[in-house]
Amino acid sequence: MAELKNDRFLRALLREPVDVTPIWLMRQAGRYLPEYRAVRQKAGDFMTLCSTPELACEVTLQPLQRFPLDAAILFSDILTIPDAMGLGLYFAEGEGPRFRNPVRQPEDVAKLAVPDPEGPLRYVMDAVRLIRRELDGRVPLIGFAGSPWTLATYMVEGSSSREFSCIKRMMFDQPELLHRLLAILARSVGEYLRAQVAAGVQALMIFDTWGGVLTPRDYREFSLRYMREVVAALPRESEGRRVPSILFTKNGGQWLEDLADSGSDALGIDWTTDLGDARRRVGDRVALQGNMDPCVLYAQPQRIRDEVATILESYGPGSGLVFNLGHGIHQHIEPEKVAVFVDSVHELSRPYHTETPR
Amino acid sequence: MAELKNDRFLRALLREPVDVTPIWLMRQAGRYLPEYRAVRQKAGDFMTLCSTPELACEVTLQPLQRFPLDAAILFSDILTIPDAMGLGLYFAEGEGPRFRNPVRQPEDVAKLAVPDPEGPLRYVMDAVRLIRRELDGRVPLIGFAGSPWTLATYMVEGSSSREFSCIKRMMFDQPELLHRLLAILARSVGEYLRAQVAAGVQALMIFDTWGGVLTPRDYREFSLRYMREVVAALPRESEGRRVPSILFTKNGGQWLEDLADSGSDALGIDWTTDLGDARRRVGDRVALQGNMDPCVLYAQPQRIRDEVATILESYGPGSGLVFNLGHGIHQHIEPEKVAVFVDSVHELSRPYHTETPR
Repeated sequence: MAELKNDRFLRALLREPVDVTPIWLMRQAGRYLPEYRAVRQKAGDFMTLCSTPELACEVTLQPLQRFPLDAAILFSDILTIPDAMGLGLYFAEGEGPRFRNPVRQPEDVAKLAVPDPEGPLRYVMDAVRLIRRELDGRVPLIGFAGSPWTLATYMVEGSSSREFSCIKRMMFDQPELLHRLLAILARSVGEYLRAQVAAGVQALMIFDTWGGVLTPRDYREFSLRYMREVVAALPRESEGRRVPSILFTKNGGQWLEDLADSGSDALGIDWTTDLGDARRRVGDRVALQGNMDPCVLYAQPQRIRDEVATILESYGPGSGLVFNLGHGIHQHIEPEKVAVFVDSVHELSRPYHTETPR
Repeated sequence: MAELKNDRFLRALLREPVDVTPIWLMRQAGRYLPEYRAVRQKAGDFMTLCSTPELACEVTLQPLQRFPLDAAILFSDILTIPDAMGLGLYFAEGEGPRFRNPVRQPEDVAKLAVPDPEGPLRYVMDAVRLIRRELDGRVPLIGFAGSPWTLATYMVEGSSSREFSCIKRMMFDQPELLHRLLAILARSVGEYLRAQVAAGVQALMIFDTWGGVLTPRDYREFSLRYMREVVAALPRESEGRRVPSILFTKNGGQWLEDLADSGSDALGIDWTTDLGDARRRVGDRVALQGNMDPCVLYAQPQRIRDEVATILESYGPGSGLVFNLGHGIHQHIEPEKVAVFVDSVHELSRPYHTETPR
């Protein structure tokens, strides 16, 4: 493998000194880029794009050709695992993801097996191998998965949800059944992420998109517990280097202390939590990633720079921060605004690092 | 006016001793009740239901005929104020609320005036007067309004939103324009709530449904600040009795300390915050209202009772709690489950009060 030319992102996740604060964007390969929309149209449907390694590789690299980002993230979907379990994932135009065979009954759960990452998910690993080759050491490649709880919400609801009535009914009335489902998912996510590391990813992120819809008690029992299991199963090193992991519970700002004890190296933070407060609360246990409101990218360039300055000032000096949005970039953002954002982070963060050369 | 026979709700909001913990449900007059659906169908559309005092009165009283609730809440909508400002509110079937004339430009804001509560909003005050007469002192009547920020989101977006891109763009690029809009709304909400008190409501609630989509800084500047202005303008007494106010920022669990200093008597709490933690954080500054996950009402009766017991235990002994859901009741809940819920709160809370007869 080519030597890594820019390792700021990996160093910041381990709170090692960096020259400037690294930055990447959630959904940086996405619909706001005209070149993405062109490939997406060529592919026909979203799952063809995900499951064709050459196309997944092409869109993964697109944002790096435009912006000096400090990491690439595998282009894929969090629902590849339930799809590989036979649930029949499909995307209806203008709607979110749907499953032909949702999981509702004990016999639905009993039928599920941990998918072989080099079997039905081989297309993901092939994409990782191809992207690593094409990246040629420019920046690290991030692999990812959905959290067991988040995957379970889609599998039980059968689609996106606002109320989560099906999975919560299962949680309240058949908690053992839900625990069985989550246990299978935790093993599946663990094996999937290990295989991604074996195929070449250099950092890992777990997206707990829907952990924030739970009570604190239910969050600990049904989401955090299984993320811990996943983290415990991850390889610590690959290619002679630590493989850092990032946990991100959207709307999980009230539970940062719990998350900081989960064994991961870093936490994703959304914009409802002040980054300076978050840093004080987690101390030196974990690095942080975030947390600009994606809507700031609708604003004028100077306003974007001002917001970056405010967030950097709130975090303060020293390493341990990976700049990002607090959620995925919106599809109607102009790419020129992203250029302003990325450049602002690199420019404005330099004094926070040169002043503390540890 | 008839003397109030059950004042538990008002006493708990002022942290005065009560025999059992009072309970009401957000959206207790709503689609989960077959008798509501019948009136709704008779009315034709939702706004006719809101704007016909006899019908609004009828549905306000319906849940009290089924369940021993400790408060009634005026049946209305938070968007009556922008409608009275001339924005043209309508509800398309199966969609959320929409405005024919959203507020986007400086001239749109310049055109807005504080609506006379006894002018275009007289139907609301007439409903209050009629409901008070029909209630005949059984339980107190709650009046309400949306927070200035929450009203502004609908007025600027023109509809419900998931990303709030229009109002946030205004917030970032034209903050003075948004401040002008929010100032007019704060005056309008203040006058509207004062008029509701004059017409007979005995407690007030401000719904800040969308404050939780902001950063902590923006929340303080664009939502909390204007709720403070509203609270400062409210009458403290009516009919010789204190009129308590409740602020509820959905997903505002991280900002309870700020909310507790806003001048209101109580805070609404959603289920993502533990009620015992919330009580420790706000001390004796405010009472609390909440916070069961509405989805618990999908569960079996014993599970509902268990959850009520857990929440009561978390809050602990003494007054200062109004039991409620953490959000409005869902439309597919069976009314029998609500009966279990209400009875459980009254039954299971008694030991927490008799043991501390202050």
